[in-house]
Amino acid sequence: MESIARQSVKMCPFMQRAGSVQGLQVLHNANLPAVARKCPVVGHAMSRAYATASGTGARRATAPEPKAGSANEMVANHATQESLFDYDGLFETEIEKKRLDKSYRFFNNINRLAKEFPKAHRDLEDDKVTVWCSNDYLALSKNQQVIDVMKKTLDKYGAGAGGTRNIAGHNRHALKLEAEVAALHKKEGALVFSSCYVANDAVLSLLGQKIKDLVIFSDELNHASMIVGIKHANTTKHIFRHNDYDQLEEMLQMYPRSTPKLIAFESVYSMSGSVADIDRICTLAEKYGALTFLDEVHAVGLYGPHGAGVAEHCDFEAHRLAGIKSLPDKSVMDRVDMITGTLGKSFGTVGGYVAASQRLIDWFRSYAPGFIFTTSLPPSVMAGAAEAIRYQRSHLELRQLQQLHTGYVKQGMKELGIPVIPNPSHIVPVLVGNPDLTKQASDLLMKNHKIYVQAINFPTVARGTERLRITPTPDHTDDLSDILLDAVDDVFNELQLPRVRDWESQGGILGVGESDFVEQSNLWTEEQLSLSNNQLNPNVSDPVLGNLEVSSGIKV
Amino acid sequence: MESIARQSVKMCPFMQRAGSVQGLQVLHNANLPAVARKCPVVGHAMSRAYATASGTGARRATAPEPKAGSANEMVANHATQESLFDYDGLFETEIEKKRLDKSYRFFNNINRLAKEFPKAHRDLEDDKVTVWCSNDYLALSKNQQVIDVMKKTLDKYGAGAGGTRNIAGHNRHALKLEAEVAALHKKEGALVFSSCYVANDAVLSLLGQKIKDLVIFSDELNHASMIVGIKHANTTKHIFRHNDYDQLEEMLQMYPRSTPKLIAFESVYSMSGSVADIDRICTLAEKYGALTFLDEVHAVGLYGPHGAGVAEHCDFEAHRLAGIKSLPDKSVMDRVDMITGTLGKSFGTVGGYVAASQRLIDWFRSYAPGFIFTTSLPPSVMAGAAEAIRYQRSHLELRQLQQLHTGYVKQGMKELGIPVIPNPSHIVPVLVGNPDLTKQASDLLMKNHKIYVQAINFPTVARGTERLRITPTPDHTDDLSDILLDAVDDVFNELQLPRVRDWESQGGILGVGESDFVEQSNLWTEEQLSLSNNQLNPNVSDPVLGNLEVSSGIKV
Repeated sequence: MESIARQSVKMCPFMQRAGSVQGLQVLHNANLPAVARKCPVVGHAMSRAYATASGTGARRATAPEPKAGSANEMVANHATQESLFDYDGLFETEIEKKRLDKSYRFFNNINRLAKEFPKAHRDLEDDKVTVWCSNDYLALSKNQQVIDVMKKTLDKYGAGAGGTRNIAGHNRHALKLEAEVAALHKKEGALVFSSCYVANDAVLSLLGQKIKDLVIFSDELNHASMIVGIKHANTTKHIFRHNDYDQLEEMLQMYPRSTPKLIAFESVYSMSGSVADIDRICTLAEKYGALTFLDEVHAVGLYGPHGAGVAEHCDFEAHRLAGIKSLPDKSVMDRVDMITGTLGKSFGTVGGYVAASQRLIDWFRSYAPGFIFTTSLPPSVMAGAAEAIRYQRSHLELRQLQQLHTGYVKQGMKELGIPVIPNPSHIVPVLVGNPDLTKQASDLLMKNHKIYVQAINFPTVARGTERLRITPTPDHTDDLSDILLDAVDDVFNELQLPRVRDWESQGGILGVGESDFVEQSNLWTEEQLSLSNNQLNPNVSDPVLGNLEVSSGIKV
Repeated sequence: MESIARQSVKMCPFMQRAGSVQGLQVLHNANLPAVARKCPVVGHAMSRAYATASGTGARRATAPEPKAGSANEMVANHATQESLFDYDGLFETEIEKKRLDKSYRFFNNINRLAKEFPKAHRDLEDDKVTVWCSNDYLALSKNQQVIDVMKKTLDKYGAGAGGTRNIAGHNRHALKLEAEVAALHKKEGALVFSSCYVANDAVLSLLGQKIKDLVIFSDELNHASMIVGIKHANTTKHIFRHNDYDQLEEMLQMYPRSTPKLIAFESVYSMSGSVADIDRICTLAEKYGALTFLDEVHAVGLYGPHGAGVAEHCDFEAHRLAGIKSLPDKSVMDRVDMITGTLGKSFGTVGGYVAASQRLIDWFRSYAPGFIFTTSLPPSVMAGAAEAIRYQRSHLELRQLQQLHTGYVKQGMKELGIPVIPNPSHIVPVLVGNPDLTKQASDLLMKNHKIYVQAINFPTVARGTERLRITPTPDHTDDLSDILLDAVDDVFNELQLPRVRDWESQGGILGVGESDFVEQSNLWTEEQLSLSNNQLNPNVSDPVLGNLEVSSGIKV
């Protein structure tokens, strides 16, 4: 067959242009018959056969009888004899790949019980486990006020919104929720999406598609939704090393000031707990004329006096005193152009959003297909999320308890020599470093200790850095933590997993056992942790309904 | 400045290659300093400046002093003096464009009242309107059984899932819902997403990215979510004229049998109400070795004896008799590889799904970022959706009433000479053909008649085909329809909108007033409309939990 192909290449002027046997192979895999119809030798005959076939819909286009050793033979082969594509084979192979590299996922059936938080039942209702890996960071999904609002809304407004925001799906719940989000981040407006995955994808792709020549600068550890959005932005991008702002500046310097730019980053990186220097990024953005896009998904509810995230935490005292009012001077939060967040983690429900200037929000609202062409969230979900935001804003103690419980677990792990990837935030990433062992550890915790901590493997984290990711909440008391610590110690013994000293002897990784690693101090200071709720400005809990015309197009 | 540019082009070998003043302009807008660093004249100097700047992070890279009339001058200008990009100006211009072409959207504040369906209140609770344009087709969002299940689930399992499917967000509600969806479509498995927008985008983009050389054939009227998914698939695509299967076959014939192919289409096209010939598309797919991707978003709940959609409706009698069991011979539904649907329209809640073979579902589950990296729907939403599917499956009369009410409205419009785009389905698209007048008509219906029908303008429909889209439900009684008909007649008079005879005199459009247009008969026959619920096979209402390992990775 290869010699036929070689001869074809020599004989035919078209094939000579295609250049090589490999070139022919490419054509073969693509659309040789379509190309062949342009050939002066077979084209005419094919056209006739094609006209017949398309008229009746009954026959496949065929070329004339092939001559041995000519390109025509190949055309005819493709047209009549070749077997159909083996789709199932491809899907099977891809799934098998996952099994072989241990990245195939087994979902655990976890039914989190509102009245027994943080307990959940598995398949059977009496088989209960303690959940230590949920993103319901403030335990607000079981908050009675949130649940009551949702039930009342269900009774009055039904189960679903019944349409897109433009067609019957825009209502007081959407208006209220977007006003709460805007007030939380002290922005002029906000827009709610089905999820923050959708918000990130929609916003980033729109920016790239609509701002000609936009250059995007993206932290290498950004979440999948941002990576996907940046890919869909279809523009020039540069990935800078995680939190490496010298490199970011080098990249920014490569472009003229007038070139539109966007820096996309997160505040808390969910799998490592590392934290961005938002102030520094904003300074760079201002210097080089870049927009800033900040994902606070794993920070809202947890940082800042009112739970607006790390950007609010940067000016903690000023925001604490100002309540829901803007600061007289530009705050770090003001300097960020777009903040995205989720309603599905600290805010206990589901959905995502972007908060920004009125103009930007109106632009997203008017152009983003992921916003325009999708059914609104149910009224009950939007009402519940708004209630959760309002509730947590004035309950500083939820954030403080979450921090204190995190500190307790981290300290306990340290005393046991269990390797925790060091970070200044609320995430406790216990390093295992092997996908199979991580899954075994997770399974043993469940089986022997009735503790659920999901194994985090590729593609969520890089291969070789597989981990157990532990997320304490205000309800994970020290008693529960003691049980957890014993259990993790036991599993580390049973599976002989490497402890800090073992990582040390190998030179360390990700700050674990690295001799020259300088630990960052915790985001929450001792002083901040000792404040009481009534030290918040009392205007903090006022319901806020400002700038509603941003999301409705009309004043309400 | 232009003469400097012209001189630069002549002087510099690099600029000569860039070719023209326009070429230089392109470089100017892109990354001239980056390119300039490759220049033998300024490159060396820039490198030195750059190294200094990146070391301190304090200085902008600068080129040496420019000489008049050289390209260097431009480089220097960009590096130091050029103003920053005007983002706000761009956003403002884009929004202004929408205002000018009348596609700027004003959202109506519509609060649909469960206990007064189809009424909703506007901003004020006593300002009530009748909603005639929601996609809550079966009025299941106010169904008491659905609401009760959701409230019970809220009490027991809380407001939110608390994590992705892989991390604490997989539960009995997800398992149950996916089993119900799979059973509805008689497929081996199903996978639930945040929305069907996400499902369509995730599935289509994954197929294109993972199946090398896949060619996608897409109906020109496909929904935005499919268009976006196909764009993200990043592979060869062909758009065929709406429902033109001769053209589809011509396109399929262009490729060898072994080339992987996918035909993407909808069953009911939501804005026109036109319906695909699924049987014929499957026959073509089988002949040419193509996968079939069918979006039944606007058909589930409404067609087929059990509400599985138009594919089920194709074998109505056989499915009616078989109940939830598969047919002995391959049904049209069996022949479709992937069916996507929504939980946010007929099924009254929110979310979307794909139903397919176990292998395909496992593949989507394992590889689609839009599924992997997002928080699960709340337990209450999943439980409510599963209940809605189960409920409507055995309530044939909901579908029948919806059809009868649609027929009543269409007949009434016909008698009044109001132009309805003809179709065999449940959509009543009243043609206006002008964006401004469509909005005025919608506003007048609301203001004078307390009736809410949203104006449908670009980009949801093509310019010049703007319409009022009316969607009756089982609760839109003939009394309500009479009020609607009077109101529409009144508004058509007041705005002097074109009636059927006016369109006729212009030669007609979209089947309205076209002399040679042949109307299709309704999908629902008289016989099907006269069946009673107890003529369904009683096994129809059994809860089904099969193939759970598909979505969990483990047997449960």
